[in-house]
Amino acid sequence: MKTLSIVRTFGGIQSVFSHASKACRCDMRFAVFTPPEDIHGVGPFPVLYWLSGLTCTEENFISKAGAQRVAAELGMVIVAPDTSPRGADINENDVPDDPDGAYDFGLGAGFYVDATEAPWATHYNMYSYITEELPAIIEKEFPVDAARTGIFGHSMGGHGALTIHLKNPRKYKSCSAFAPIVAPTSVPWGEKALSNYLGADKDKWASYDATALLTDHGASEAHILIDQGRADHFLDTQLKPEIFNMAADKAGQALTLRMQAGYDHSYYFIATFIEDHLRWHHRALMQAA
Amino acid sequence: MKTLSIVRTFGGIQSVFSHASKACRCDMRFAVFTPPEDIHGVGPFPVLYWLSGLTCTEENFISKAGAQRVAAELGMVIVAPDTSPRGADINENDVPDDPDGAYDFGLGAGFYVDATEAPWATHYNMYSYITEELPAIIEKEFPVDAARTGIFGHSMGGHGALTIHLKNPRKYKSCSAFAPIVAPTSVPWGEKALSNYLGADKDKWASYDATALLTDHGASEAHILIDQGRADHFLDTQLKPEIFNMAADKAGQALTLRMQAGYDHSYYFIATFIEDHLRWHHRALMQAA
Repeated sequence: MKTLSIVRTFGGIQSVFSHASKACRCDMRFAVFTPPEDIHGVGPFPVLYWLSGLTCTEENFISKAGAQRVAAELGMVIVAPDTSPRGADINENDVPDDPDGAYDFGLGAGFYVDATEAPWATHYNMYSYITEELPAIIEKEFPVDAARTGIFGHSMGGHGALTIHLKNPRKYKSCSAFAPIVAPTSVPWGEKALSNYLGADKDKWASYDATALLTDHGASEAHILIDQGRADHFLDTQLKPEIFNMAADKAGQALTLRMQAGYDHSYYFIATFIEDHLRWHHRALMQAA
Repeated sequence: MKTLSIVRTFGGIQSVFSHASKACRCDMRFAVFTPPEDIHGVGPFPVLYWLSGLTCTEENFISKAGAQRVAAELGMVIVAPDTSPRGADINENDVPDDPDGAYDFGLGAGFYVDATEAPWATHYNMYSYITEELPAIIEKEFPVDAARTGIFGHSMGGHGALTIHLKNPRKYKSCSAFAPIVAPTSVPWGEKALSNYLGADKDKWASYDATALLTDHGASEAHILIDQGRADHFLDTQLKPEIFNMAADKAGQALTLRMQAGYDHSYYFIATFIEDHLRWHHRALMQAA
């Protein structure tokens, strides 16, 4: 593990690391915030995984969301990984990026799945990376209380957070999302990504669809929080939170869906409500066994 | 005036505008945050001008500093201009950028002076832009109380804030800075910029040197706040706040200089202490006549 940067902020430490990933067969980057030791001691601390949206790296969240202020106050660790495999290893193995050079597939668009189709299957294994390899590193190298782990994210990362929570509710005990993709099997972003990463058989897509998971597997014990801007340009075509809301009603899933008037899809929206999300997770995780 | 973007954040509005600048003879951009009307009404509000550092545009501060949260709570407008003339007009007139392509002169490095030397004098008139043209637009188009105007900034922008305040204490009634250049006539960044923009005669530089201004003109009535990170790589070579501190002592200038252990020159440092600065200005401006 190599330290790429280490900066003091709000009394804590914001760092970025790189390491040779087995799951993705390339160097991967992730960011970690640890809270101030002089206030909170040396831990272990509750830990939150933040999954970013399309086009993001590990950098967007840590520079724009303003989460460190609240995490420093509450005493929480936040881990923010990159959104796809990236770098020279990928190019050397002749894995093409999206042939159209689009933003919604390939680099920056891993969709938190384990790809099964060539050529993506070699590197695009973000599901295993996020749920196995990364937590193993974090729990070994950082002062986190693994029994108090939560997950949240934005857009494609909200999809990642919801699906990973619903498939691993005992590991990720709290879950929230900003403007998540809740039904990727039936919206353009998801159809493009899942058909390329997983192939044409739509039955295989269902295990990466939050709404399908809720219907098939039933509710988790968590109370999920979703914030969605009403002025979000992707609301009606790609996000459709009402689909997940209906499935939650049916499955008995505790869900608070807040439709925020005037807010768009940007980090200005995330920054506005990040404090609510951190306090929501902190409350849930401090009650967790 | 053209609206380039308009986004809701923390209940207020963060916008970016462009306009044809007379002072800089090119299109200039500036960002404006206005606080939530449902909490604070329609104004007029106290207004703060933020001056950014080397390499920045109007974008860095509004996406990274986290100021909107506090400005929304306090009910303040924040104006963040670009740091130099920029764009096609500059290139068409064959104004070279720094011949070495360096970050510390030319584009992104206007140093808040009115250049007197060719070819800079045509466009590089950031002092007049910031102190005359921009306030005239802001006071005409936005709900600000011009009698409650403050100024603050970072690094080169801290230099801009201190010099503009000291030269115009009745206009800019409150002043603070993060890691400011306080004595540009005697550090490499300042020597390079001022010799090119103003020519070889160092007497002309003094009117853009905060320490010299304090010595020559005397103290302002404001209580100036400066935060400086001790782990800032530029501290000993470019910033040297102790020089200004000594001049303030001598001139009877009220100054609080806080040396912050562990903090560097980045927006992670700014974000940590921005709330203190906004509350500092708000207190001062609410007492202003």
